Amino acid sequence: MTDRVLALLDGTLADPAAPLVRAGDLGLMRGDGVFETVLVEDAAPRELTAHLARLVRSAGALGLPAPHPAAWRRCVAAAVAGWGRPDELSLTLVHARGTAPDGSAPTSFAFGMPVSPKRRRLRGTGVAVLSLARGVDPDLVGRAPWLLHGVKSLSYAVNMAATRYAESQGADDAVFTAPDGTVLEGPTSTVVVAHDGVLSTTPPDLGVLPGTTQAALFEAAEAAGWRVAARRLALADLWSADGVFLTSAGHKVTRVRSLDGTPLRDSSALAAELSGLLEARYANRAVHSWNEATT
Amino acid sequence: MTDRVLALLDGTLADPAAPLVRAGDLGLMRGDGVFETVLVEDAAPRELTAHLARLVRSAGALGLPAPHPAAWRRCVAAAVAGWGRPDELSLTLVHARGTAPDGSAPTSFAFGMPVSPKRRRLRGTGVAVLSLARGVDPDLVGRAPWLLHGVKSLSYAVNMAATRYAESQGADDAVFTAPDGTVLEGPTSTVVVAHDGVLSTTPPDLGVLPGTTQAALFEAAEAAGWRVAARRLALADLWSADGVFLTSAGHKVTRVRSLDGTPLRDSSALAAELSGLLEARYANRAVHSWNEATT
Repeated sequence: MTDRVLALLDGTLADPAAPLVRAGDLGLMRGDGVFETVLVEDAAPRELTAHLARLVRSAGALGLPAPHPAAWRRCVAAAVAGWGRPDELSLTLVHARGTAPDGSAPTSFAFGMPVSPKRRRLRGTGVAVLSLARGVDPDLVGRAPWLLHGVKSLSYAVNMAATRYAESQGADDAVFTAPDGTVLEGPTSTVVVAHDGVLSTTPPDLGVLPGTTQAALFEAAEAAGWRVAARRLALADLWSADGVFLTSAGHKVTRVRSLDGTPLRDSSALAAELSGLLEARYANRAVHSWNEATT
Repeated sequence: MTDRVLALLDGTLADPAAPLVRAGDLGLMRGDGVFETVLVEDAAPRELTAHLARLVRSAGALGLPAPHPAAWRRCVAAAVAGWGRPDELSLTLVHARGTAPDGSAPTSFAFGMPVSPKRRRLRGTGVAVLSLARGVDPDLVGRAPWLLHGVKSLSYAVNMAATRYAESQGADDAVFTAPDGTVLEGPTSTVVVAHDGVLSTTPPDLGVLPGTTQAALFEAAEAAGWRVAARRLALADLWSADGVFLTSAGHKVTRVRSLDGTPLRDSSALAAELSGLLEARYANRAVHSWNEATT
């Protein structure tokens, strides 16, 4: 498996084809842990500081021991060095509870593989999206921390099932909606809407994951003259938008070309503009990102 | 780790302290898989046929390859033989998607450990329960299969978080409620209410897991003259009940002694009666359960 890489928290590499995790790990038996997926290009991990900050927040929501960003930076550096291939690396950082019954030391590692050809293709073609009910009132999530909304836990079976359901209906991806029609997020992405020079996304306090790629895009776009906003979005806002995009480490800026079977306005030019702004952010930062202070 | 046992699907035992699962397994990285927890007493697994049937249903809901009950029976038999201790064994059957990106062969094993002393203690004392919102309208779940309600997936982080939240508030366990107040299920148990000679539980079509222990209890109770029903339960039904119980392989029949901080009617005698009916079901069945036809 030369197209896989596995690094441990002590900065050593391990064989990605060899077993690593015990059967009794609660990360496996109960999805009890947190993760991040970091995009690595030209040997530089993108938005690592933001990803590690979110990993720490997610771990806190699950009552896990706090991840040490310095150790994680060493682990990521080892994975990137061990990868040594030109293709984009999708690097997943896993921080799980550890061995049953109560967890011992957390199980922590970085596992990388190439960004899938399908994901790369869809960045170019755009995606057909199906809206799917998530069922939970956004006004509840702040009062119900046990629901883990806005937490990137390993318990992603619903996210995977939603994507499979969308694909079974001939779509490429999904967006979750609340009972009142509020647009929440994709199963593995953030929803961004462009309208009249304003980029908008769903506020995190409605129970969505704060997007690292979305935040980077907003920073780059604002510097280029766009206005940016977090506001409650309805499906009607997607229908009337100049462009609708899904963002994530894997999606980058992927335009939504249709929603529930009906084409949206052609946003190819906007997608190219926003992608350009995002990519320019990294053009001269490969060295810089490695010199960031450990946090 | 002589108080752990690990058996593989080919009927061999493996070292439970040794790593078994690859870092890239989607069961670990995305909680993408299903499980069952079987109680083994006196070397006999309880309700194995029902557990395996539910494992098959859960796997179908996730689009996983169908588990083969005959292979699982062989695996369970190996685990039970390898255990060889007098204490109750909590045996978890895991059937996960396998290695990323798309899963290869599923990752399947049975991992066992003793029922926790805390769980055993709470069977005797009863539990203080906190009601916690799950947020999703029960009338949605039948139309939204991607939400995986009623599916025992590995993505149990919310169930674990709900239990931790209840404990942080001084309770022992939780029951989930729907937005309209319907009582759903515990994070790891089924809710059973006794009232005027009738045992009731929430209907599975409201998005709860059909309980194997609850079904066994209802069968035993009905044979002893109780009436049984699946009906929509409100919190008011719990307040007015002769007894409220949580059932699961681990809970057996655990009485709820208080709800949201207020004591419920003392149901110690009822709990003893129902536990007796359930235990009698297994008194002479150790041999029988091994002779059940493979399904």
